[in-house]
Amino acid sequence: MAEPFSPEPLRIVGTGVPRIDGVQKLTGQALYGVDVHFPGMLAGKVLRSPLAHARIQNISTERARRVPGVRAVMTGADTPGIKYGFFKHQNPRYADKLPLETEKVRFIGDEVAAVAAVDEEAALEALALIEVDYEDLPAVFSPEEALKSGAPLVHEKASGNVAAIVRRGAGDIEQGWRQAEVVLERHYSTQAVAPCCLEPHQAVANFDPASGVVTLWSSTQMPFQLRRELADVLGIPEAKVHIIKTVMGAGFGSRMEMHAPDPIAALLSLKTHRPVRIVYSRTEEFQATRFRHPMSFDCRLGLTRSGRITALEVKTLVDSGAYLSQAPGEATVAGTNPFSIYKVPAFRFEGTAVYTNKPYGGAYRGYGNPQGTFAIEGLLDEAALELGIDRFELRRRNLHNAGDETVLGYRLESCAQRECLEAVVRALKPHQKRGRGRGIGIAGLFNPGGGTRVHGNSDGCGAMLKIEDDGTLQILIGGQEIGQGGATAIAQIAAEALGLTYEAVRVESSDTNLIPWDLGTHGSRNTFVSGNAVIGAAKKLRSRIIEVAAELLNAENPDYLEVGAGRVWIQREPDRSVSIAEVAKAAHYRRDGSVLMAEHFYDPPTEEPDSTGHGNKSAAYSFGFHGAEVDVDQETGEVRVLRMVAAHDVGRVINPLGAQGQVEGGIAQGIGFALVENMFADGGQTLLSNMQDYKIPAAADLPAEIEILLIESRDPHGPFGAKGIAEPGVIPVAPAIANAVADATGVRIRDLPITPEKIHAALRAVKDK
Amino acid sequence: MAEPFSPEPLRIVGTGVPRIDGVQKLTGQALYGVDVHFPGMLAGKVLRSPLAHARIQNISTERARRVPGVRAVMTGADTPGIKYGFFKHQNPRYADKLPLETEKVRFIGDEVAAVAAVDEEAALEALALIEVDYEDLPAVFSPEEALKSGAPLVHEKASGNVAAIVRRGAGDIEQGWRQAEVVLERHYSTQAVAPCCLEPHQAVANFDPASGVVTLWSSTQMPFQLRRELADVLGIPEAKVHIIKTVMGAGFGSRMEMHAPDPIAALLSLKTHRPVRIVYSRTEEFQATRFRHPMSFDCRLGLTRSGRITALEVKTLVDSGAYLSQAPGEATVAGTNPFSIYKVPAFRFEGTAVYTNKPYGGAYRGYGNPQGTFAIEGLLDEAALELGIDRFELRRRNLHNAGDETVLGYRLESCAQRECLEAVVRALKPHQKRGRGRGIGIAGLFNPGGGTRVHGNSDGCGAMLKIEDDGTLQILIGGQEIGQGGATAIAQIAAEALGLTYEAVRVESSDTNLIPWDLGTHGSRNTFVSGNAVIGAAKKLRSRIIEVAAELLNAENPDYLEVGAGRVWIQREPDRSVSIAEVAKAAHYRRDGSVLMAEHFYDPPTEEPDSTGHGNKSAAYSFGFHGAEVDVDQETGEVRVLRMVAAHDVGRVINPLGAQGQVEGGIAQGIGFALVENMFADGGQTLLSNMQDYKIPAAADLPAEIEILLIESRDPHGPFGAKGIAEPGVIPVAPAIANAVADATGVRIRDLPITPEKIHAALRAVKDK
Repeated sequence: MAEPFSPEPLRIVGTGVPRIDGVQKLTGQALYGVDVHFPGMLAGKVLRSPLAHARIQNISTERARRVPGVRAVMTGADTPGIKYGFFKHQNPRYADKLPLETEKVRFIGDEVAAVAAVDEEAALEALALIEVDYEDLPAVFSPEEALKSGAPLVHEKASGNVAAIVRRGAGDIEQGWRQAEVVLERHYSTQAVAPCCLEPHQAVANFDPASGVVTLWSSTQMPFQLRRELADVLGIPEAKVHIIKTVMGAGFGSRMEMHAPDPIAALLSLKTHRPVRIVYSRTEEFQATRFRHPMSFDCRLGLTRSGRITALEVKTLVDSGAYLSQAPGEATVAGTNPFSIYKVPAFRFEGTAVYTNKPYGGAYRGYGNPQGTFAIEGLLDEAALELGIDRFELRRRNLHNAGDETVLGYRLESCAQRECLEAVVRALKPHQKRGRGRGIGIAGLFNPGGGTRVHGNSDGCGAMLKIEDDGTLQILIGGQEIGQGGATAIAQIAAEALGLTYEAVRVESSDTNLIPWDLGTHGSRNTFVSGNAVIGAAKKLRSRIIEVAAELLNAENPDYLEVGAGRVWIQREPDRSVSIAEVAKAAHYRRDGSVLMAEHFYDPPTEEPDSTGHGNKSAAYSFGFHGAEVDVDQETGEVRVLRMVAAHDVGRVINPLGAQGQVEGGIAQGIGFALVENMFADGGQTLLSNMQDYKIPAAADLPAEIEILLIESRDPHGPFGAKGIAEPGVIPVAPAIANAVADATGVRIRDLPITPEKIHAALRAVKDK
Repeated sequence: MAEPFSPEPLRIVGTGVPRIDGVQKLTGQALYGVDVHFPGMLAGKVLRSPLAHARIQNISTERARRVPGVRAVMTGADTPGIKYGFFKHQNPRYADKLPLETEKVRFIGDEVAAVAAVDEEAALEALALIEVDYEDLPAVFSPEEALKSGAPLVHEKASGNVAAIVRRGAGDIEQGWRQAEVVLERHYSTQAVAPCCLEPHQAVANFDPASGVVTLWSSTQMPFQLRRELADVLGIPEAKVHIIKTVMGAGFGSRMEMHAPDPIAALLSLKTHRPVRIVYSRTEEFQATRFRHPMSFDCRLGLTRSGRITALEVKTLVDSGAYLSQAPGEATVAGTNPFSIYKVPAFRFEGTAVYTNKPYGGAYRGYGNPQGTFAIEGLLDEAALELGIDRFELRRRNLHNAGDETVLGYRLESCAQRECLEAVVRALKPHQKRGRGRGIGIAGLFNPGGGTRVHGNSDGCGAMLKIEDDGTLQILIGGQEIGQGGATAIAQIAAEALGLTYEAVRVESSDTNLIPWDLGTHGSRNTFVSGNAVIGAAKKLRSRIIEVAAELLNAENPDYLEVGAGRVWIQREPDRSVSIAEVAKAAHYRRDGSVLMAEHFYDPPTEEPDSTGHGNKSAAYSFGFHGAEVDVDQETGEVRVLRMVAAHDVGRVINPLGAQGQVEGGIAQGIGFALVENMFADGGQTLLSNMQDYKIPAAADLPAEIEILLIESRDPHGPFGAKGIAEPGVIPVAPAIANAVADATGVRIRDLPITPEKIHAALRAVKDK
């Protein structure tokens, strides 16, 4: 097997350098979207539907237009009327959203009209004066309801409210069932939870009539996708759209797609020839941005008596909400990754995304994987109980090994899954005596860690590097810092690859005109793909540095030169050295000289999966196990998470602080998902208006003990062997906690969140038996 | 001889496309320095010396500090006290200027103190309250005065007020004098003229205490030189300086060096932690920015009776003014290029830059060449008269030919000098009968047209190119648009080299963090050097485009493919074609795909001249002749230029509109230099406060007939064969007019400007004889 590029000893990779953007953020110098200001800039506001489902009969904007300071009042009739949707370029049917709806509104909060005015007050005053005549329509609030024959149609074109169906599967399922000696059938379900980014969604658009270019400042995770989406919905060429990604106050996947402020601000700017800014309120954040799709899973699992999985069939309903957004993609993920945690020789998955008259979900860290993993890992524990096999042992019997190829064709070139399992089991001390109400649980995860070739056949990233005369490195890279520490990791990788100090590196990745193309930061790909792009360019520069240094040092053989910390020296004579600044100057200031510059485009060596999901979709796969220890109040059903142990196969740790932070953050979000967060009341509506209505775990709500174990399997394709660690931290948290709760109480909650009410009711039901 | 890269037929190169920045400028969208605005930005103002020469005894800033709104009052004592100067890195002695002077002031207008306040009014009020005690010192106002023994010293370290001495020469001068059958001795002199850029000098500086970085928005021709100069004078590492070049309202060389607003704004921002803007008034423009150095020439020319030049010796005094700036560079140019117009087998030059207590000169289009050419081309006409040889014929006998190497080692690989001469002579119709007071004159020029290797051994430029999925090309290039049309030429060259449409190209060249290094736009190098940088990168992309297109078109042989206007087709089957957007997408959206990206650094294949000036300093040389027809009022001495004919060997015309514009502008400035402009009154002082005090030729002052002939010699190193045309237009104008005046009147004015008073006096002197 190939070895990753990793010239030892490493000096920067593996050390916990401070974030490259840390000081900027701490001192308030970082330019967030709300800091973008232009003279003459207008405030944009959006009028939203007060009804869950209604036909728009008439919109009267006359009174609104007369408000002093109002520069534009816009309805769907004033727009090109082109629908958008994240997967539109893969399937035109997946475009179902208008910037401003014209015929119907489909959820409370749907965009109906917009105003641009000299200030927010005037805009809000005008908003209140727009008169919309609605014909109220019957609405549906759950997939089950929506699928019933005769149910009201959210979109007339989607018969039966079926938005999309995704089927995945592999292996001989008939044989799997024949081999099954035990079969379990269970129903699991998960709820909607919000990423709650501290920075609200916002956009500043500026149309320049001279050039015809619309410039959009937006905190997007995928600037080049946004460029395409925005050009499409505005009906102008992509060359006339210019995206500048502002500093992001968290993304978590929710900023992958174009959000309503992007096209609405752009359309208002096109109309007014003025810069227009839209900033969402926290209420709009809950009403009108993306959240984790609720899913339900009808599962059928077959095993041999010895605990070998033989077959698995799952039917999933995805509650898409009023529009489709990323529901097909999330169904695909839910239908592949959770089935790959263990050796599953045969499985079938059918995911149906269903329209309902609710706010619509989208990407959120894990992207279908946390939902599916909750089901699969619950099933595993239930099977262990059924088979009378220790649940850790059951897992051991179904693990992967490095070099395996899964039934879906995933080639596991690096795999420290077993080490992760054993590390967590060891830390959990399963044989320790625990008191009443105490329990432990475990759950695994499988996630692509080397990109995923699913988006129109490029999963690449470009990088351009130049070294200045003073030895400073400037990186222009497509891959985005989204708050996760990506730019820090990229700077470390570049510094290591080139033998520079970390402080000598600058990273620019915000302006689509200037940076080379990248798919966008999502799917735990950024460090892997951008890191490899940077290494590809750095290798070219490294050879040139060594060549010039050899000249300057009169070295007999360039192979004997070592590079690090901004210098080049002769291995056995470290005193014979030269700085990289001197090398840069020497390369530059000579006849036929050149500045140290290089570009590279890295596209992971992966396959686009076929329609069944078969194909080696990622260049590397991340593994891990989480263990939870909980204390459950047997009276109230209240769950306290005492301890979390997380072991992750990260390939290589680039930045231990960053990797730990990723896992810690994932655990916090996972605990919220497991125990408390829930966007929708039972009736299907959301009444959230601010963070006080929506509890997310704060520092005090986290377990006192969080133990994070980073295990290095050195992936042959990873930058210095690294694999993605962005999403894994959240994926197994909920099932680990659910399994611990079951261990503690004897009752299994298969429906998230695991509230005291549900535990209490389950305990009472057991007692009543 | 090598052929230039020039895939025929050309589609864009050679056509007069509109300027790439034209619409932006016409509609007011272009971001000039004065358009840069930040919240909390302070206004900076500079206190200047009211005396030509004085010792600073005390500065009291207390009253100024108390003005409401004042945020900083700064004197030299508050600064690091590091001197700067354009040639400091070549010779530390050439640094003689402080941002704010501490010991002495050396001219009326010298920088003494600075204020930053919330608005201009407060800053001006504070400025008026700064009290400076001066000890008035005797001053010198001309080089001749300054060189006298016992003259007051402008800089104590420069004994005899000699700022720098430059000696150049080649050939066997003794033999030259032995061969001379006729010897002429003459004295020529030229005055100070101002470039009069419409945009005043300005700078916005913003110090970010979080990163320690100073960002400077400045309309500089040489952002990377400015980065180095500013870092040096602030005493901080170059990595902590970030230059953003704003759109420039003309440079003409005057914005090559760091101007006082750059360091003063930066120092005020460092002090206040606020953005600070300094904008010069027109009075400050005349007082405190650069202009063409006055020079005088003591010449001795030897020729054979048959008109062959045998020897030439010139001693030049450069009136440097109070500081050195670019005087040594200009002396070097005056001591080389004018001696290279004709075959001069042996010459000696000694140029002495002398300090005087006047505002100081600097770079201005031609950079010593217009001054020296005025002397040499006057001498030629005087020699023709002396020898009784037709002045056109005398020139013919001393011309270069392609393939020649001059006595200084300049290799003339392309040379259409003879065609230029004959074209101008033909157009001038020398044998036509002209009336009384009418005359014609001619003068030649020699100028590097392929860069000049004189600045620390790199004359290069880097370019990074990327082609977007839609076939749009983004260029990141170090070479600067300074109003001359450089970006337009670069876009044409790139479009041609890649087979794109002109409209598909974007050029970015403003931000030193992002663009690759370039020496800076000066010396008529931009199109040549940047153009070659772009071609170098484009060639790499072109191969890839053809390779992918061949695949898409199932072409048997990529050699049979043609590229142009955004498409690739099979030569004999033009219907079998594919767009470059399709090629870009196909290259990108595939396994192992990559975005079309390439970088290149071009450094012209030239030699750094030795201390005598010997060495092939440029990769190409531009030639030309100007002819003038004048009408001189025999009573008043008033000169009317009736007609100018300009023939230029430009190698290849990239943009006929741009090239003609360059020559027309040069003629306008040359007429001002020849006839009217003069910054200093006889006493040596300037009292100019606004444009009404300083007449420059306006449209109505130009001759009705300007005939421009662009002759293409196809230089083997030039981009598509092109050579520089930025400076040539101004160089021979004054001597052509002077020669026409002499032809018209029989009197020769050897001292510019050729005013009616001088002609009148000369005519009277002749009459009185």
